[in-house]
Amino acid sequence: MQAIVKPEPKPGARFQEVAVPEIGLHDVLVRVQVASICGTDLHIYQWDRWSARRIRPPLVFGHEFCGVVEKVGAEVSTVRQGDFVSAEMHLSCGHCYQCRTGQRHICQNVRIIGVDTDGCFAQFVRIPEANIWKIDPGIPADYAAVLDPLGNAVHTVLAGDIAGLSVAITGCGPIGLFSVAVAKACGASPIFATEIHPYRRRLAEKMGATVVIDPSATDPVAFVLGETGGVGVDVVLEMSGHPEAIRQAFQMLRRGGRISLLGIPAKPLELDLANDIIFRGAVVQGINGRRVFETWYKMQALLKSGALDLAPLITDRIPMSDFEHGMELLLSGNASKVLMYPNGLP
Amino acid sequence: MQAIVKPEPKPGARFQEVAVPEIGLHDVLVRVQVASICGTDLHIYQWDRWSARRIRPPLVFGHEFCGVVEKVGAEVSTVRQGDFVSAEMHLSCGHCYQCRTGQRHICQNVRIIGVDTDGCFAQFVRIPEANIWKIDPGIPADYAAVLDPLGNAVHTVLAGDIAGLSVAITGCGPIGLFSVAVAKACGASPIFATEIHPYRRRLAEKMGATVVIDPSATDPVAFVLGETGGVGVDVVLEMSGHPEAIRQAFQMLRRGGRISLLGIPAKPLELDLANDIIFRGAVVQGINGRRVFETWYKMQALLKSGALDLAPLITDRIPMSDFEHGMELLLSGNASKVLMYPNGLP
Amino acid sequence: MQAIVKPEPKPGARFQEVAVPEIGLHDVLVRVQVASICGTDLHIYQWDRWSARRIRPPLVFGHEFCGVVEKVGAEVSTVRQGDFVSAEMHLSCGHCYQCRTGQRHICQNVRIIGVDTDGCFAQFVRIPEANIWKIDPGIPADYAAVLDPLGNAVHTVLAGDIAGLSVAITGCGPIGLFSVAVAKACGASPIFATEIHPYRRRLAEKMGATVVIDPSATDPVAFVLGETGGVGVDVVLEMSGHPEAIRQAFQMLRRGGRISLLGIPAKPLELDLANDIIFRGAVVQGINGRRVFETWYKMQALLKSGALDLAPLITDRIPMSDFEHGMELLLSGNASKVLMYPNGLP
Amino acid sequence: MQAIVKPEPKPGARFQEVAVPEIGLHDVLVRVQVASICGTDLHIYQWDRWSARRIRPPLVFGHEFCGVVEKVGAEVSTVRQGDFVSAEMHLSCGHCYQCRTGQRHICQNVRIIGVDTDGCFAQFVRIPEANIWKIDPGIPADYAAVLDPLGNAVHTVLAGDIAGLSVAITGCGPIGLFSVAVAKACGASPIFATEIHPYRRRLAEKMGATVVIDPSATDPVAFVLGETGGVGVDVVLEMSGHPEAIRQAFQMLRRGGRISLLGIPAKPLELDLANDIIFRGAVVQGINGRRVFETWYKMQALLKSGALDLAPLITDRIPMSDFEHGMELLLSGNASKVLMYPNGLP
Repeated sequence: MQAIVKPEPKPGARFQEVAVPEIGLHDVLVRVQVASICGTDLHIYQWDRWSARRIRPPLVFGHEFCGVVEKVGAEVSTVRQGDFVSAEMHLSCGHCYQCRTGQRHICQNVRIIGVDTDGCFAQFVRIPEANIWKIDPGIPADYAAVLDPLGNAVHTVLAGDIAGLSVAITGCGPIGLFSVAVAKACGASPIFATEIHPYRRRLAEKMGATVVIDPSATDPVAFVLGETGGVGVDVVLEMSGHPEAIRQAFQMLRRGGRISLLGIPAKPLELDLANDIIFRGAVVQGINGRRVFETWYKMQALLKSGALDLAPLITDRIPMSDFEHGMELLLSGNASKVLMYPNGLP
Repeated sequence: MQAIVKPEPKPGARFQEVAVPEIGLHDVLVRVQVASICGTDLHIYQWDRWSARRIRPPLVFGHEFCGVVEKVGAEVSTVRQGDFVSAEMHLSCGHCYQCRTGQRHICQNVRIIGVDTDGCFAQFVRIPEANIWKIDPGIPADYAAVLDPLGNAVHTVLAGDIAGLSVAITGCGPIGLFSVAVAKACGASPIFATEIHPYRRRLAEKMGATVVIDPSATDPVAFVLGETGGVGVDVVLEMSGHPEAIRQAFQMLRRGGRISLLGIPAKPLELDLANDIIFRGAVVQGINGRRVFETWYKMQALLKSGALDLAPLITDRIPMSDFEHGMELLLSGNASKVLMYPNGLP
Repeated sequence: MQAIVKPEPKPGARFQEVAVPEIGLHDVLVRVQVASICGTDLHIYQWDRWSARRIRPPLVFGHEFCGVVEKVGAEVSTVRQGDFVSAEMHLSCGHCYQCRTGQRHICQNVRIIGVDTDGCFAQFVRIPEANIWKIDPGIPADYAAVLDPLGNAVHTVLAGDIAGLSVAITGCGPIGLFSVAVAKACGASPIFATEIHPYRRRLAEKMGATVVIDPSATDPVAFVLGETGGVGVDVVLEMSGHPEAIRQAFQMLRRGGRISLLGIPAKPLELDLANDIIFRGAVVQGINGRRVFETWYKMQALLKSGALDLAPLITDRIPMSDFEHGMELLLSGNASKVLMYPNGLP
Repeated sequence: MQAIVKPEPKPGARFQEVAVPEIGLHDVLVRVQVASICGTDLHIYQWDRWSARRIRPPLVFGHEFCGVVEKVGAEVSTVRQGDFVSAEMHLSCGHCYQCRTGQRHICQNVRIIGVDTDGCFAQFVRIPEANIWKIDPGIPADYAAVLDPLGNAVHTVLAGDIAGLSVAITGCGPIGLFSVAVAKACGASPIFATEIHPYRRRLAEKMGATVVIDPSATDPVAFVLGETGGVGVDVVLEMSGHPEAIRQAFQMLRRGGRISLLGIPAKPLELDLANDIIFRGAVVQGINGRRVFETWYKMQALLKSGALDLAPLITDRIPMSDFEHGMELLLSGNASKVLMYPNGLP
């Protein structure tokens, strides 16, 4: 089959022929219909420090997709050939404390398909039955390809109360933009979004942000405090991982508010714990992946209801063989979700 | 001033001249702009068993309103003449366990303005400063008159998780209908509503219910179980107080789901605790009033965002002198919220 | 092997020879060291209405035990021969909504070992690997035999806040008595316990109840309200299933309090929802089994800390062949936990 | 009356004659029976940077005490002369978002008696009625003087689940030591405590810590991970404010655990947010004061039950005129709570 492969430990990737994965007793083989590029894939493509430590080439990468079940292992009972599916790509061990207490999204021994084992940037991908998510017929196919990052957003937005609360979302990459849409669909208001790139600011407006702030032109802390009578927002969702944005994120938060951190800072940073967290009575949450499968069920309900219009975020559709073009689009900042078709465009 | 008075302990009421209330050091006098009739007012008007036990005539009743501050007591510091306000009408004692622990909505010694003391079906009403709620300029005046029952709905819907969850609302009186709108604005889906009266069923559809069920024609339990793959809904909001609806409400709930009870049954009823609550792992909540002022802040945010279109529920506007017509409209079932104007129609 | 068998659908049971269970790829065979009799076993023994509907003889019953692993299936990786273990006896399906969202204790398709399949009143019992719980070396062997009912108590007590709160426990069967001990170990105070049988009242005192009430002599509602300044208790744990005790349980609860229902009433009963739940702002929880494995981890920590002295509740130790004597002891009310030894007394 | 006064903005204080406070309509005058020295008082005494910014001399400082009501204002209705009382010393404004939503412990406009207005290191102190806490007769008088810091501990320990969970407490100043006792009384186990001073380590053992670690001799992260099978503890309570201890505190926490921060770092510090919070799925709480009055009620229940033996922490009792000796004892590290008697030793 054709697949995007990181052949050796250095920048770049190749679209080339590889063997179709063999499946075990409990596995499912899925013919990939649509795959989508994540920021993590960009890191692997560019071979940053994180990739150099984590990735063991050769590897087929990619972990956002949907497709049709081609074949199932002998002991698979809940999935059938022809099912239209996506998957939770975090493989949890099943044995650790977290797995045994309903928190498999933070499994101590997690491995990720497309990072630690061959992924979905290919015509076929192997998925364990326990990780398969069947797509509800009421959900558009393109959206089915982005459930993984949409799930990050749903998990983050719904990690605490949100309805009837004010929210600031710092950073409007794809997950930040999804979060704007999810927060709006779940009754948050007002929704402040901060973002440096003009292209993403326009998308944030389309997604329903009440006000979109360019932090290079306006002090977002002063602005948000001004708009909230000096109180700050009830909830901050930190989606940038940028040190300055993170510090501002804390300062926008009202006393007793919730700040959920999803963006990954590249290195340690200085924080004023006394004023930013302690005297503020803040609740700070580290957010990882998606709850399996609580988040998936909620995401499905939100999508089926029509409350989420994600169309503006799917900015590009390309054959998978053009993946380098897709990577460049994302690096330019003038794209949000780029869909790739390994088995033919729709 | 003119006011609707229950003059003696029997059915009926009179629109008549009474003295303008005197205010104390901590009180505010409000010129009522719009008042709205609650089901409780109907009970007082008709003089049911509950009224006979609770009400001490002569009484000016009514507890849903908005208006403009006319005068403030000498020690009032946060409210000024000319402020456009509504009010929390539950007077909490401030000294009991609940009041001292942030639960004044279930104060042990609660007294209600318009039930235990003179209310807002009048040109003026006296309100303690601590109970005043200032109306945000972004909120339409008519909606300001129905914050009390809307607050019941917001409190009930948001008494647990709701976003991305399926909901059944049993009973579509005004609070049930508000709840449909609030649940939709907060990301619930699908929303099943049950109601016997055709007029209210049409309103439930306008408010955004996914499916509206006539329990006199369709078995709502079988229907909801059928639509949810036999699982039941995540959340039930019981708004009818009707014994059969309550029993059905429990049977619609999925294992581990939440059922919030707001409708008041007229007398004790038989429940199958083993199957309806215990084996079901259900969480049952008794809901009272609104959280003071958590619910008010959330309600304000939802209204300002434009996510709640309440216009279809405001079915009638009459001079307060025509109150008997308003009562009849409500008794006929062919009205939802009836607004009354003691100081002239808008 | 020797086992207690319900041979046909009628009262009684036989201690007789049956085949040692065969194990599958994912199963574990455990040599039972200690088994313990549950109220459910009494129902099966006496063949009540519930048993007649649920049980399909011939059946080896019993579901409370500990023992040593004799043999493991070919695909078992986390359990080894010689491990000292107990087990969660609820077999969850793994596929339903509840199982996929961390709530397998309320699986829609639950089957119970010792009720729906052969249980632990035998020299050997077959358990799926996923249900095995390894006993921490710091835990006394006799306690390891009663983790199932102790888990019910821990789950109920910790289903909400308990530290620094007042509690009433209605009914002092074994789970009620365990609950007294757990509530005390977790900082509840005062702890009121109600119980009709004098033998159990004495045990409740030993377990640490602050006051033990005989409801046949003292009105428990009046007593508890008197002791709490008319407020009621913060938490009620209903452990009796008795209609009158349940009604009293609600009336003892303070406004805004939590009542957790574990005792199973034999049939529907009349409740005053308006006063008992709605105006009270109560939170009512239906409690089922134990959280898998959250409750098990907490139970282990409580036992290891030495905070739970369960010795007074283990009232009798008999050879398994004397099971009829054990059943009689329990029916007399003059026993709490009766331990049986199928492979020899300790 | 006699009082400890900070007369001017520099180190030191004087025990001198000042006027007895005048009380307003809503105030209570309390004759101080016992006062206790807090770390904050040491800062004021030594005149550190924080004091220089915050304190406006002349000021009677001190905010931990109990005493007997001497006189009440004309509108005081719930407190009477002769009542034995302590008080919540945070004066909340009553008008801000936090005050109106049950979070007055994080009032935006908080002022503190003994910091911003005259405090309790005196023969008499003025307290608003709304801040008075009546001492239950079942509580020893000496304990009544330390409810303020004990409340910090109870608030921190009970800011999330604790029963049946493992805990690390970093820093064994008085609040850390109280936290050890409270955690133990509420079912936490094991309890790891870290502390550099040998005197405090011995007290931590007396309070019930399972293991007390000297971080200058043993790596506490490696130790705690070793004792928890590499998982980390469920809960960390950070009580030191020390940068290195804070960093270690995060590293001891299991994935998905809770870390509550009470110790105030003197300045911003570097944190590895990615590994310490985000990938860890941690919940970080900033803790402030005590919940008013939720924490007070729970503290009262814990004290009355006898579950807290605080005697070892009350290390010294001196006449208030010897306050300089008390300050020196604390600065030496060889004392925990020092009680002072302005109206005569007991």
